[in-house]
Amino acid sequence: MPQTFRAIDVIRKKRDGTELSRAEIEGLVNAYTKGDIPDYQVSAWLMAVVLRGMTRPETAALTDAMLHSGEVLDLSSLPARKVDKHSTGGVGDKTSLVLAPLAAAAGVVVPMISGRGLGHTGGTLDKLEAIPGFNVNLPVAKFRRVLEVCGCAMIGQTAEIAPADRKLYALRDVTGTVESPYLICASIMSKKLAEGIDALVLDVKTGSGAFMKNEKDAAFLAELMVETGERMGKQVVALITDMDQPLGNMIGNALEVVEVIDVLRGAGPEDLRELCLELAGWMLHLGGASKTVAEGKQHSAQLISSGKALEKFRRMVELQGGDPTSVDDTKKLPKARHTTELAAGKDGYIVSMQCEQIGTACVILGGGRERKEDAVDPAVGIVLHKKVGHRVARGEPLATIHYNDGPRAERAKQLIAESCHISDTAPTSTRQLVHRVIGKSGEKR
Amino acid sequence: MPQTFRAIDVIRKKRDGTELSRAEIEGLVNAYTKGDIPDYQVSAWLMAVVLRGMTRPETAALTDAMLHSGEVLDLSSLPARKVDKHSTGGVGDKTSLVLAPLAAAAGVVVPMISGRGLGHTGGTLDKLEAIPGFNVNLPVAKFRRVLEVCGCAMIGQTAEIAPADRKLYALRDVTGTVESPYLICASIMSKKLAEGIDALVLDVKTGSGAFMKNEKDAAFLAELMVETGERMGKQVVALITDMDQPLGNMIGNALEVVEVIDVLRGAGPEDLRELCLELAGWMLHLGGASKTVAEGKQHSAQLISSGKALEKFRRMVELQGGDPTSVDDTKKLPKARHTTELAAGKDGYIVSMQCEQIGTACVILGGGRERKEDAVDPAVGIVLHKKVGHRVARGEPLATIHYNDGPRAERAKQLIAESCHISDTAPTSTRQLVHRVIGKSGEKR
Repeated sequence: MPQTFRAIDVIRKKRDGTELSRAEIEGLVNAYTKGDIPDYQVSAWLMAVVLRGMTRPETAALTDAMLHSGEVLDLSSLPARKVDKHSTGGVGDKTSLVLAPLAAAAGVVVPMISGRGLGHTGGTLDKLEAIPGFNVNLPVAKFRRVLEVCGCAMIGQTAEIAPADRKLYALRDVTGTVESPYLICASIMSKKLAEGIDALVLDVKTGSGAFMKNEKDAAFLAELMVETGERMGKQVVALITDMDQPLGNMIGNALEVVEVIDVLRGAGPEDLRELCLELAGWMLHLGGASKTVAEGKQHSAQLISSGKALEKFRRMVELQGGDPTSVDDTKKLPKARHTTELAAGKDGYIVSMQCEQIGTACVILGGGRERKEDAVDPAVGIVLHKKVGHRVARGEPLATIHYNDGPRAERAKQLIAESCHISDTAPTSTRQLVHRVIGKSGEKR
Repeated sequence: MPQTFRAIDVIRKKRDGTELSRAEIEGLVNAYTKGDIPDYQVSAWLMAVVLRGMTRPETAALTDAMLHSGEVLDLSSLPARKVDKHSTGGVGDKTSLVLAPLAAAAGVVVPMISGRGLGHTGGTLDKLEAIPGFNVNLPVAKFRRVLEVCGCAMIGQTAEIAPADRKLYALRDVTGTVESPYLICASIMSKKLAEGIDALVLDVKTGSGAFMKNEKDAAFLAELMVETGERMGKQVVALITDMDQPLGNMIGNALEVVEVIDVLRGAGPEDLRELCLELAGWMLHLGGASKTVAEGKQHSAQLISSGKALEKFRRMVELQGGDPTSVDDTKKLPKARHTTELAAGKDGYIVSMQCEQIGTACVILGGGRERKEDAVDPAVGIVLHKKVGHRVARGEPLATIHYNDGPRAERAKQLIAESCHISDTAPTSTRQLVHRVIGKSGEKR
């Protein structure tokens, strides 16, 4: 059989810093997806990409090849604009569960395909599965029906969508080639664009609880994703948002669902509510449901106070097999057997929180997974009573830990205690919730 | 089973440019040799090494780990000093066949383990096998016996020696990770040091027929190998020598044996004779058979004119199963069925030869291999009648092509014609045969 595509040539070119053509990138992705080239060639290429980087056309070509490695949903039968939101991951980041029903209540269609938690960050699918009966594994036909009926649906990745990404991600995970903005961009954007969306709002986290610890790296990735999406004819905007402390007060799957319902009821912690309205404002604007972002924000606030957003959430839960009564009676959600309080060791002000450690504390409790195959305990988690800038008195509770295993609770408690830095003087500056907005679509703000 | 060695951590460290410890490098090499870590992790690591480089301690640790992945010959029962020579490969480079018997005739023990030709360069084993009956696949015990009896022996790599290198080289070959001076150094030095030698003379080629086209790269590799060998307690010297045109006049396996015998008889082309004496001078000096290199050179010339070096060659051929009468009657060596002449297209001076192309012409004739599994035709080859600086008249023969296949001969002829640049004016400068000598052992020159 004549070899039309020579992987070794593409590896060498990337190694030597030469730009690859679209055909070469497509050749590599297609051959790998079909199993025609071995893992060891692709991992060498991936490492060359990590160390040599990629040009914008290369990044777009890689995204495109991965996107077209599987099914691309055609939602053109739904007349409204299709808009999704994607977050790069954080601690207590439950905005997706608020945003999908909220934007749908405004008439925007939200076909959301999400992931599970890995490492210190939580995952949307794990949170949804804390709702009794909720099924995140809908076949594509059923996903489409829920969208038609309700305007939003939330599922996990299917085997049909971007199979190249699944294969490449598994290889990157074991070969030290995860940490490349170009590969991260292609992975995220290929999956999102396969959803058949018109526009995408990206929430790129930065700070001690984010994968991108500093804002410069976060902004670079954000620009890359925006540019790649725009090259492919989509409207994309990225908000660089703060993840230097957990978002909201609750961390842990069922606890986060409780907080989501609080926000949808018009209550909930201010930072979470504010970020949800900001992101919803963008979704409505890009979805054609408001002239400006400000108008979209305002409209979103109305959809919450009128109860329409919560009604949409209840409907989606029901359509995806979940118990809708648990939305109104959150006692029906899984609950840990025990709680314990973490008290402040001294008087003062919380000046910072090591946010990744707090995420890790939740994983230790059983609320997240260290390895892909780990099971998750939906009931456990952490409720923070104090956040950065707050004054605390010695002995005052900083957090309540919901747990099912004593020794794990002790380790988690210790970690949270270490992560909260209490000082005599109040912090002089506070970090903005939204650091900046990237993307041409942002001009109409 | 608890994983004591985590390949992913070593990959990440190298990716991020952090120096690896000896234990980490040993861990990786040992685990890979045993089959405990997969190819795809090692290829990612190799690419990180290619792009990040290695420190001197890392290079030494890698060489050491590869060296000790298999058997290290103990030749301490042989009282004389053991010295080998290694060339990085060129066109018409047949010095090994002269040097082993020549140094042995001076009382130095030469345990030479060589390779086959790949790409445009020839291989010592292929040349030896042009001698009827010559066996390069001696078991270690037999290799040792030939050394005891004759003072020199020439074989191919055995399964026992540096198995890590064999496995790593096969992987590098298909993952674009051959071209790293650190990996080349570790590969060469691990095999050479496994021979149980005291000293090593390196012939690092530079020019259009070498792997290292420019002298800077050649010198860098030479310094790396010298320093690595010295760190491991061996005397190592490297000569950067010219490979901008073929060495000697004959290219092709049996033809090169003829030229070797010519040199051992005191004849042969001047450049080949001169380089053999230079390298032999170093081998004798490092082998304790002469006080200085100059004395070693002089002694070597005497060993040739006295016929002792040729006698040693005849003896080695016989001990390794070859026909010793073919040494005296070279008509017994394989001979191509046809010859054809390449004539000069115009009057003038040869100002340069594209040396790699001439090597490739020999491969096209069947004298080398493009892939490892290719068979080699020992009889075919090229005899050059003119070299760089020579004056030629239109129609005068530049080269004679020995061939067994007409169409191949035409392609080879065309390539050689293209590779010889004839100009009206003589070249103003000529390249030195030995560009420079690298290594502390060179001080006593």
